[in-house]
Amino acid sequence: MPRLAYLGPEGTFTEEALRLLDPTAERLPCANVSAALNAARAGDADGAVVPLENSIEGAITTTLDEFAWGEPLLITAELLLPVQFSLLARPGTEIPHIKRVYTHPAAITQCRAFVARELPEAVVVSAPSTAAAAQEVSLPGSPYDAAIAARIAGEHYGLVQLAADIGDRSDTVTRFVKVSRPGPLPAPTGSDRTTLVVFLADDHPGALLEMLTEFSVRGVNLTRIESRPTGDGIGRYFFHFDFEGHIADARVGEAIAGLHRICGEVRFLGSYPRADGIAPQIKRGTSDAEFAEAGDWLARIRAGQV
Amino acid sequence: MPRLAYLGPEGTFTEEALRLLDPTAERLPCANVSAALNAARAGDADGAVVPLENSIEGAITTTLDEFAWGEPLLITAELLLPVQFSLLARPGTEIPHIKRVYTHPAAITQCRAFVARELPEAVVVSAPSTAAAAQEVSLPGSPYDAAIAARIAGEHYGLVQLAADIGDRSDTVTRFVKVSRPGPLPAPTGSDRTTLVVFLADDHPGALLEMLTEFSVRGVNLTRIESRPTGDGIGRYFFHFDFEGHIADARVGEAIAGLHRICGEVRFLGSYPRADGIAPQIKRGTSDAEFAEAGDWLARIRAGQV
Amino acid sequence: MPRLAYLGPEGTFTEEALRLLDPTAERLPCANVSAALNAARAGDADGAVVPLENSIEGAITTTLDEFAWGEPLLITAELLLPVQFSLLARPGTEIPHIKRVYTHPAAITQCRAFVARELPEAVVVSAPSTAAAAQEVSLPGSPYDAAIAARIAGEHYGLVQLAADIGDRSDTVTRFVKVSRPGPLPAPTGSDRTTLVVFLADDHPGALLEMLTEFSVRGVNLTRIESRPTGDGIGRYFFHFDFEGHIADARVGEAIAGLHRICGEVRFLGSYPRADGIAPQIKRGTSDAEFAEAGDWLARIRAGQV
Amino acid sequence: MPRLAYLGPEGTFTEEALRLLDPTAERLPCANVSAALNAARAGDADGAVVPLENSIEGAITTTLDEFAWGEPLLITAELLLPVQFSLLARPGTEIPHIKRVYTHPAAITQCRAFVARELPEAVVVSAPSTAAAAQEVSLPGSPYDAAIAARIAGEHYGLVQLAADIGDRSDTVTRFVKVSRPGPLPAPTGSDRTTLVVFLADDHPGALLEMLTEFSVRGVNLTRIESRPTGDGIGRYFFHFDFEGHIADARVGEAIAGLHRICGEVRFLGSYPRADGIAPQIKRGTSDAEFAEAGDWLARIRAGQV
Repeated sequence: MPRLAYLGPEGTFTEEALRLLDPTAERLPCANVSAALNAARAGDADGAVVPLENSIEGAITTTLDEFAWGEPLLITAELLLPVQFSLLARPGTEIPHIKRVYTHPAAITQCRAFVARELPEAVVVSAPSTAAAAQEVSLPGSPYDAAIAARIAGEHYGLVQLAADIGDRSDTVTRFVKVSRPGPLPAPTGSDRTTLVVFLADDHPGALLEMLTEFSVRGVNLTRIESRPTGDGIGRYFFHFDFEGHIADARVGEAIAGLHRICGEVRFLGSYPRADGIAPQIKRGTSDAEFAEAGDWLARIRAGQV
Repeated sequence: MPRLAYLGPEGTFTEEALRLLDPTAERLPCANVSAALNAARAGDADGAVVPLENSIEGAITTTLDEFAWGEPLLITAELLLPVQFSLLARPGTEIPHIKRVYTHPAAITQCRAFVARELPEAVVVSAPSTAAAAQEVSLPGSPYDAAIAARIAGEHYGLVQLAADIGDRSDTVTRFVKVSRPGPLPAPTGSDRTTLVVFLADDHPGALLEMLTEFSVRGVNLTRIESRPTGDGIGRYFFHFDFEGHIADARVGEAIAGLHRICGEVRFLGSYPRADGIAPQIKRGTSDAEFAEAGDWLARIRAGQV
Repeated sequence: MPRLAYLGPEGTFTEEALRLLDPTAERLPCANVSAALNAARAGDADGAVVPLENSIEGAITTTLDEFAWGEPLLITAELLLPVQFSLLARPGTEIPHIKRVYTHPAAITQCRAFVARELPEAVVVSAPSTAAAAQEVSLPGSPYDAAIAARIAGEHYGLVQLAADIGDRSDTVTRFVKVSRPGPLPAPTGSDRTTLVVFLADDHPGALLEMLTEFSVRGVNLTRIESRPTGDGIGRYFFHFDFEGHIADARVGEAIAGLHRICGEVRFLGSYPRADGIAPQIKRGTSDAEFAEAGDWLARIRAGQV
Repeated sequence: MPRLAYLGPEGTFTEEALRLLDPTAERLPCANVSAALNAARAGDADGAVVPLENSIEGAITTTLDEFAWGEPLLITAELLLPVQFSLLARPGTEIPHIKRVYTHPAAITQCRAFVARELPEAVVVSAPSTAAAAQEVSLPGSPYDAAIAARIAGEHYGLVQLAADIGDRSDTVTRFVKVSRPGPLPAPTGSDRTTLVVFLADDHPGALLEMLTEFSVRGVNLTRIESRPTGDGIGRYFFHFDFEGHIADARVGEAIAGLHRICGEVRFLGSYPRADGIAPQIKRGTSDAEFAEAGDWLARIRAGQV
């Protein structure tokens, strides 16, 4: 039974993601993303589950920077989890009683309409996480009457769900990834995604265009690009790229090798099945069979067998 | 005397930036970035100063999203402010006395080495902002012995600076921008930057490459790209672009008009003098004079005057 | 009634093209392409009709070089003429009598199968033009028994058509253009072609890619590219481009102005109705209406009317 | 001693090129380019020398089309030969006696100024080749007084050189290539050129741009592009490409394999030493060493050895 570290405490959306990714895993809650990843790196866990991006909030920059700068880890799976906030309270509490609500700032932002409509008098206070809010509210002497958190946080901390799916948008999604220490890659499935971190060799005009051309010329479609500061002053960035395909695919391998040649450093973060199961459209001339045939043809020509 | 809203409370780095950008302005501290921008939008202030990005932390996403989705504002100036953290305490406190330190999480991250070396026994607690930490520490009954904050926070709240420039990196910089309600643009200076938000028309493969080509073909160099989620699910993004030049420049205007034609929506956020004073390298054929000459030539040809 | 010079003598395919392009024109046969163009330049004719390219032989390089280096002329129309060779002889000659055939080398190449099959014993001799061959054969004492030429050459010189359409390929086509001295351009028709000559400013790597990008970024599709030597040694070339659209089209004008800015010299050779009547596919964002709207939008932004 | 076919008769510039390329070879003059190439194909000769392009006249289209459509041959060497025309006559002839000059039309064009200045009264008549003109003039009863041809034509046919280097431009150059039946390629020298013929798969807009991008993304610089008609009607072309480097070079091989994948057909015509000895500028990331290192890196990543 594998042991997976995750962004805790118990009851976070990350726990929910972990349970879906690996229902039988032993769960090791950690204080923050770095701690969860370090547990995996140090061998205290077999892997970790952390959030990578949210369809409202955007990238989880701590995760991006850990992947770029920390000891290498390999993404082996991803999960898209709908974010459904619940209003949770101690048993016996009813909505009209609620004067003070405790939750994470992202939840404050995303549940603004519900709070304005249903709890117009309530004060909403920032918590370190939604699960921590639920935990706090579960204490008998808590100054807070309710928490906004994941449903499973209520289960963990013995709270009652007074209202479900209270976010302003019903389609908010967080993308989680499961990582492990470097080792054999997941096999290609035909619907894969690959993630890289790329540092420029020198930040000349057109450098980003050149990188994108390495992808496009081999028919590899980007699905995400994030720039992050290198730390060396405003105006110096590195990039996270997600794109269709598996590094075992010929077109993907050639594109990545091309980036490796022209860029300062390319860090491979993993090739893994896409959570949405979408298969890439293979552009003419970029299938594995076409790459293999072209390689054979080239070898014959080089050998003088025109 | 203009009145400028800013990310408060008094003593923030943003206040420091505002003072440098406009020493004589009346200052209106606001609870958060949105409040500061709303004060400018509503006319409670003549403008606002907010952080846009930091060389360690990256983009201030609240600012990016306010610029993209909120009522339009125009960036009229930028400032690069070195971030120098100070250890501040009530008069009489000495370093060996410090058991509990209060500061913003970004400062925790960025002053880790100093704390480990000089305050190995201290507990560090997260505050909503560095200035709020200083304010809290200034209260006689505060549970905290020291704050990590900007030097000017100490001046505001009557604290003593026990150590200066305690960040792990001495070159950390935050970029601030001054915005106002839409109106006449700052005149071109020869060393300008322009900022746009661009939404895709349809998210087809190669869309980003096409956008970058609109810039490169007119010799306009990008200085920053940030992707942000549109809110419509993982995998849907819009982009912030910073690039060299002023919208009054012919090459910049043609590039922006090109984006406007091929993209879903382009929101212009401003053309303003670069804080670093760097003038762009004008590629052959892309100066205003060359655009004007080509326009005249084209007009003659179209009129049959070969 | 206009007077048009053409590549003579009477009875050439060029005469046939001229008659189709302008049935009522007075015709002035000239000894070669340069002479025909010079007649138009000098005012001895109102214009000229000359061949530009053939679907088997390729470009007529004399025409290309005259257009590039000679006194400027404007293409105002084009015609695609199927090349149908006839076997022509003096009245009374029958196929079995034919021992010596006279024709232009291109006709020798293109009628090889017919000659091998029907005239296996005949000697085929090179003539300066197919019409000259017919003229020669029409002389009573000619050493030649038959000519291969255009049907109308037979009419001119009193020859009988012994066999029609004897080319190996029935789909051979020559493209002719009608030119005149510079003046007002033909109005756009919605199915136009534009022709340019472009000289590089400096022959750096990637120069051709940059030129093509000026077209592609505005959605202008090339239909022909020809390289020609500049005369300054092997490895130095200039280019003829044909592409969809009329210089009055916004996307075409901007692309041409872009070339003018980055290239050494751009010579405009004309915008004229396409002979095949094919209308271009207008890529999203590149219609005149979209250019106009983008121009208005840019003007408003520049004026501070965000 | 190898036997080389060439474009005859004796005394052509091609013979001069052959002698420079292979001084000891046995020479087999042929009636035209096709005959010379067929001699090599059929084994009547070990190879052939033919002209490929001229700095004034441009491409020798017969050569291009033979290379594209005929039985495959391999270019193994190239030569750049300055074209120096001589005025040649039978012994005893002096310039004032010359009334009729015989030469190839290209020579008529290229010696126009000399003839106008020195032979203002002379009639100039077209010959099939400059060497054939010299041969004709050498006959005692020839109707021509002088030929314009290569100096060696005079030697062959016993003519006297009355004037040397009489071309209008002293820098005219013809590029010749030596070809042989397919077999082992010449070894890379560090200053090589590669020649290809490329047929499009389908003639979509942007197809040429895509081909050029296959080169540019691997840092391979084109030195020549020629379009030729496919024969299937006006508007359908294929391309000859010359570019820097040898197919044994990693960057060149990958570019060619890329073209092979996306194009309809790629015919390799050879990699051979450049006549001008210019070594390519190797763009960052495109040397063989960098390709090899990237390939090793990719293999390690694919094997899970991050």
